[in-house]
Amino acid sequence: MKVAVIGVGLIGGSLALKLREKNFANEFIGIDKSENHLQEALELGIIDKAENLENGVKNADLIIVAIPVDATVKILPQVLDLISENQTVMDVGSTKSGIVAAIKNHSKRHRYVAFHPMWGTENSGPKSAQKESFSGRAAVICDKEDSAEDAFSLVEKVANTLEMNTIFMASEAHDIHTAYISHISHITSYALANTVLEKEREEDTIFQLASSGFSSTVRLAKSHPEMWVPIFKQNKENVLDVLNEHITQLRKFKAALEKENYELLEDLIRNANKIRGILK
Amino acid sequence: MKVAVIGVGLIGGSLALKLREKNFANEFIGIDKSENHLQEALELGIIDKAENLENGVKNADLIIVAIPVDATVKILPQVLDLISENQTVMDVGSTKSGIVAAIKNHSKRHRYVAFHPMWGTENSGPKSAQKESFSGRAAVICDKEDSAEDAFSLVEKVANTLEMNTIFMASEAHDIHTAYISHISHITSYALANTVLEKEREEDTIFQLASSGFSSTVRLAKSHPEMWVPIFKQNKENVLDVLNEHITQLRKFKAALEKENYELLEDLIRNANKIRGILK
Repeated sequence: MKVAVIGVGLIGGSLALKLREKNFANEFIGIDKSENHLQEALELGIIDKAENLENGVKNADLIIVAIPVDATVKILPQVLDLISENQTVMDVGSTKSGIVAAIKNHSKRHRYVAFHPMWGTENSGPKSAQKESFSGRAAVICDKEDSAEDAFSLVEKVANTLEMNTIFMASEAHDIHTAYISHISHITSYALANTVLEKEREEDTIFQLASSGFSSTVRLAKSHPEMWVPIFKQNKENVLDVLNEHITQLRKFKAALEKENYELLEDLIRNANKIRGILK
Repeated sequence: MKVAVIGVGLIGGSLALKLREKNFANEFIGIDKSENHLQEALELGIIDKAENLENGVKNADLIIVAIPVDATVKILPQVLDLISENQTVMDVGSTKSGIVAAIKNHSKRHRYVAFHPMWGTENSGPKSAQKESFSGRAAVICDKEDSAEDAFSLVEKVANTLEMNTIFMASEAHDIHTAYISHISHITSYALANTVLEKEREEDTIFQLASSGFSSTVRLAKSHPEMWVPIFKQNKENVLDVLNEHITQLRKFKAALEKENYELLEDLIRNANKIRGILK
């Protein structure tokens, strides 16, 4: 088994490290537009060799596309053009409807499996790759009926090798759920960082006082626009729905405070506390 | 040295555990309205004995008030009534102006030191106390000029024993900074939890999909209203200022998405990324 990883960054690198350790394949080929990242990935033992897109794809049994979702939409048809019926392609994008739509009518559509591992950090690049990132987390496979059985089985084996819990979903449902579970958290975190940066001019004070609560809430605000603008763009309608609801919820806190209605404030907090029963 | 801790919960318990380990005192007396908490604190080795308010306070050199800020405002004058010129009182509240105002004209005001250790979790009660919670974090002492020199020195020694970095501030400045650095994070987290609970009816999906990003952003939403309603109440004006700014910032993200202005969206994200240079 040979695996080609397109994009040897945080996600692609982390996947490769774990799959290597588990002897999932005997060769890992790296493909990346950044020569620096390829060099780093070689030095870190993430890949065995670097190739260009055409050679890398042609020589692999499994091709993992792990680049921003706008680039995935562009490269996926090219990758499918290059492969035979014995090869399988998967991606790891945080949106699915736009990616699936881009290859809907491609003659090799069935060789592609839409995959999303629910893990990430605010960091990027091969140096931030972590072998144990995925273990115990959810892996979503979308629209499985559109993939060939052997292609699906191979990607399911990837998920099992990564020690993830596989769940199945239509790509539209996936994009609604990720708007709630992942995309909105990033927007609130960015907006919170901008709030503090706008109003709190004393940067030393931020640094000195920042409590663990603040740090964990704004951690995601360190995430790069190269990854997140394309996600928000592709999932615009769902993200806007959730964002509107979030602003409505914040206004309730504002109204409770302005009107000094502390019973309402307590009700709002008690309702939020229900998340305790859902998220351990 | 004898220390009395009023409120043997998360903060009081954590303080006592660390001070004990460092042999700061030879007796730790627990005072708490909850008999269960006192029993747990005894079993966990947080305190040596339990006392009622009057006996506990009278027998201690240092009294640490570690209860919600509304209860602190009520109990602090009573504690000052009970003590002599050889005793010192400190609190740990997340607001300061209201607490300081409550004892402004008390004849023993100078025996009190306004203290705020910048640490907390979403949990409560003696069982959630952690010995190493405070190490390396900021400890704010407010209005130090209003405390007697020996009282101030004793509390500074507490901060050093906890291995905290002490910083000094007026109580009004403290309340502005904590509105940004701590209080707003809790409101956004509560509102985010309510958003998800409102719109995402499939609780199993939340649980299965929840990524590390979501979990860290909504972690604070598990925090109890008994602690947080009084904080928001006492710091209402500052919290409202920051909340209004935060809603304004969220509206910018909304406008960028609605107008499909992805350059603006990228600018907003790049600005938020500046937090990377401030928060390591």
